[in-house]
Amino acid sequence: MTAETESPNMKDTNKPGVPHGMPVFGASGRRIIYDEDGKPCRSCNTLLDFKMVTHVQKDARPSGSTTNSALSSTTASAMAIPMKKVAETTQYARDEPPDVEQLGKASWSLLHTLAARYPTEPNAEQQSDMGQFINLFAKLYPCWFCAKDFKKYIEENKPVLESQEKFGRWLCNAHNAVNVKIGKPKFDCNLWKQRWKDGWDNVDDSVKK
Amino acid sequence: MTAETESPNMKDTNKPGVPHGMPVFGASGRRIIYDEDGKPCRSCNTLLDFKMVTHVQKDARPSGSTTNSALSSTTASAMAIPMKKVAETTQYARDEPPDVEQLGKASWSLLHTLAARYPTEPNAEQQSDMGQFINLFAKLYPCWFCAKDFKKYIEENKPVLESQEKFGRWLCNAHNAVNVKIGKPKFDCNLWKQRWKDGWDNVDDSVKK
Repeated sequence: MTAETESPNMKDTNKPGVPHGMPVFGASGRRIIYDEDGKPCRSCNTLLDFKMVTHVQKDARPSGSTTNSALSSTTASAMAIPMKKVAETTQYARDEPPDVEQLGKASWSLLHTLAARYPTEPNAEQQSDMGQFINLFAKLYPCWFCAKDFKKYIEENKPVLESQEKFGRWLCNAHNAVNVKIGKPKFDCNLWKQRWKDGWDNVDDSVKK
Repeated sequence: MTAETESPNMKDTNKPGVPHGMPVFGASGRRIIYDEDGKPCRSCNTLLDFKMVTHVQKDARPSGSTTNSALSSTTASAMAIPMKKVAETTQYARDEPPDVEQLGKASWSLLHTLAARYPTEPNAEQQSDMGQFINLFAKLYPCWFCAKDFKKYIEENKPVLESQEKFGRWLCNAHNAVNVKIGKPKFDCNLWKQRWKDGWDNVDDSVKK
């Protein structure tokens, strides 16, 4: 929903929330956001910034010999990429309300990313929260006949919320049930994490079908 | 989340759920979805189909003299537009997980469309459902620092759920708070219904800024 943008300043790489030796700002000019465990947060950064910072992370020597100056150099080069132009009001105001396809795509993006960020071992409260969210989503979804189908689906296929892996696969199957209904190809649910969580960088080319 | 597609069949325009004299299928080959009040549902159809069918509605004579054959002709001409090619698995599988911008855009699309379809005079249950949904959304949103900001915003600016108009404006203001934070222009909330509910067709050109 939001993302902090500041003027580039690479002098201070010891800011709170920034792991030692990691960049503060990304190629887009936005501040790089890290998770509590110090890893860059995929859902919190632009893809460009995420790729940049994970590249830095991979290149960093395990001995900890990566210096700020080396990082500054990497980042400075990335900084040369021009910042994405901010959309103008004129363009923004003319957009039409989302149609059924745009709404569907947007909603699946949110749901699958929720699964991607769902805890690997969720506690009772986390399971209850996600269960309630899915039920309310089905109840309130703006396309009424899609909502009706989805409600029926979750009545017949109760959301599986015991782990991230199970929830991610349940959602992938729910999405496939819709794909079949509208004549779209089914997605291979063995690849749900590549598609919605980890990306394809570390996947063997033979799997990138 | 879903949309029914069938092979074009314009012979029967008296199907259940299809107002008399209105098309069964749209230019995309999908069945046109109508609301309970007989109006075409914007969130349930593709923009192309919605535009087609609202055009038919406008052109229909109030005397009810619009015949099935006249409609068939309109629709048959629209049918000549080739059906949208279904995405291939190969393309689908290579997409990267949504980044912060895509996730934000997708989520705002869903939220604003929820407001657009929220009842004009919601009852206590409908208000409670939407309130819970917004709270859970803020709790679960996959970008943790965006979620933190949004939680703070709704603590300081409680969602206004008494009517569609009030909720739509509250959401527009919430979105603007983020726009300001990331250096994007603010949207004129007097136009929230054009942007997220009704479209710009019936708006004076001077307003289409």
